[in-house]
Order: sequence, then C-alpha cells, then structure tokens
Amino acid sequence: MSGMPRADGRIGPAMSGGLRPGRATAPPLFLEDLTVGQRFVTATMPVDAAAITAFAAQWDPQPFHLDDAAARVTLFGGLAASGWHTAAMTMRLLVGSGPPFAGGIIGSGGELAWERPVRPGDTLHVTCEVLEIIPSRSRPDRGMVRVRCLTVNQDGQVVQSFAPKLVVTRRPTQEIPHG
Amino acid sequence: MSGMPRADGRIGPAMSGGLRPGRATAPPLFLEDLTVGQRFVTATMPVDAAAITAFAAQWDPQPFHLDDAAARVTLFGGLAASGWHTAAMTMRLLVGSGPPFAGGIIGSGGELAWERPVRPGDTLHVTCEVLEIIPSRSRPDRGMVRVRCLTVNQDGQVVQSFAPKLVVTRRPTQEIPHG
Repeated sequence: MSGMPRADGRIGPAMSGGLRPGRATAPPLFLEDLTVGQRFVTATMPVDAAAITAFAAQWDPQPFHLDDAAARVTLFGGLAASGWHTAAMTMRLLVGSGPPFAGGIIGSGGELAWERPVRPGDTLHVTCEVLEIIPSRSRPDRGMVRVRCLTVNQDGQVVQSFAPKLVVTRRPTQEIPHG
Repeated sequence: MSGMPRADGRIGPAMSGGLRPGRATAPPLFLEDLTVGQRFVTATMPVDAAAITAFAAQWDPQPFHLDDAAARVTLFGGLAASGWHTAAMTMRLLVGSGPPFAGGIIGSGGELAWERPVRPGDTLHVTCEVLEIIPSRSRPDRGMVRVRCLTVNQDGQVVQSFAPKLVVTRRPTQEIPHG
C-alpha cells in the first residue's frame, strides 16, 4: 500500500457494516487474501461547482464543464464534471480508502463508462468488487485481479463504472534455510 | 467546438503534413464532414517531474507517482505519471487541438489502456482515427462516432489508447418555407 498521508480532511474512513474497511485502518492485502465476490467501499467525497470548473479549466476546458449558464444550452443541460474529473476523484477515493493492496493500486486500464453526469452538490463514493483472481504463471511474486469499481452518488446512482485488471503482490514466502 | 482560450502557451497548433489541422485553425466539423479512416493529430505537450508529482499529489498519491527514489524499488522502476494524468493530458490536447467537432468532444467512455509509463521529459501528442460513424435513429440532430485516440511519446511509442464513442452534432438543416 502507498503509505501516503491523507491529502485533505474530507476523505475519512468509510463506515460500511459487513464490508471490508478501507486502507486507513486495514492491514495490507496480498493476492492470497482476496476472494471472488469480495467487496470494498471507500469513504465519500463531495463535489462542488468550484472543484468542477477548476479541474475543467486545467484538463477539459469545454463550456459545459466551466459555466452553468453555457452548459444549460448543451446536451448536459447544466454544469457537469468532466468524466476525467470523475475518474480522478474515483482514483483518489480508491487510494485513500479503497482496497489496501500491498504494492498499491496499479492497473493497465479497462473499460470505462460514464453512466450519468456528476453535478455540483453531489457526494461520491466508490464500491469495488473482485471479479476474478489470476495468479501469474511467469511471475510467482504477483497476480492479476479483475475488479469492477462503481462510482456512486448520494442517491445511489452509478455515475461511472470502471473494470480494470490490477496487479496485486503475493505474500512474500519465508525463505527456508538449506539443511 | 468549445471556443475556449488556450490555457497555457505550451500547446500550439500541430504541424502534420497531410493531416487535418486541429481546432486552433479549423472550422467546426459536423457529422456529415466525417469519414471512416479520417485522422487528426494534436499539438504536443511536454511532461516534467513537477507536473507528474503535482497531479499525483492531488489525485493518485502513490509513491511511484510522487517520488523517483521511492519509485525505483517498485514495478515502475522510476517516477511515472499516473495513468489518469496521462488521460487528463490527452483530453487537454484533444480539446485544444484535436478534432474540432461542433458541440465539443463528448463521450460516454470506452476501452482505456495504458501501454507504457509516461516519464519525466516525455513529450506527448494524440492521434485520433475515425473508426465508425453511426447516425442516431431517434435523434436526427446527432450521431455517434467511434474513434481510436492514441497518446504517443516523442519516440513514437503509444503510452495510452482510448476508444470512445463520441456524440457529434449534425449540420443544422435550413428550414424550407411552407408554400
């Protein structure tokens, strides 16, 4: 896991009865600790208009992400977060309070879908489910884990789905002394 | 198209002999203007260590994105940009100098793959190819366009591929007066 300090005070540990706690309180997880169907729930992150326009100004400066009045006459019908902002918030939640994989959260991509717009005033969290566990044949120290990460708003609506394959470290084996 | 001013001086119009110029100089494109196989090339964007760590501190604070020394002992073998940073830079290039679609660059996701790490000192650009044009049956004012966007470094290596379906506006029809 990353061992990074929390970057802001808005991301706290998630309280989710019966679900695995996030990395704030949990020991690191190795490949051997995972099971298909296992679920993780992150903390929450609020989104306001200032955050939406700040991200957009830097990375996706289109009118519907920058100005509510301009957005009203577009397909979005009002200010909406860039999908890449939603993706970035999702990653921030995963790193701060998602599955505490030993070695961190490392993926090579996956199918990404923005199911509905993120609006000012939304509060997001992420749920992850383990879909498949694939030990590496060539690298005994790791495996791949296919997960489905859903980013969900305060009304329980999915705003983004992302299904990456992640690299997860195996638990280091203790060396047995040669006799 | 967005009509937004350039956010920084580093992104200029692309020079690509025989390829469609980016939106800096081109008129807006409607669905009727597109053909399968059509290609677009953006301007370039340099990446340095400060940009990599600044993005990571905000959105993906893991050691291999924050600190070169820490990254050397990880799978990355040295400081590497967050994949979401690469995605954000890709979008910035597309909005600034990519295909000048009327209505902007609006997608609902797609298959995203990070093919290799982005390193400090890299210079990125994006190429987009039109794969499929799908007029909407229910909405006569628009259609979907499937594209493949490759983010490429200064050595011609693909660092990211993304294959979204984009919403593209049809050219407004002139009203014919009733006789």
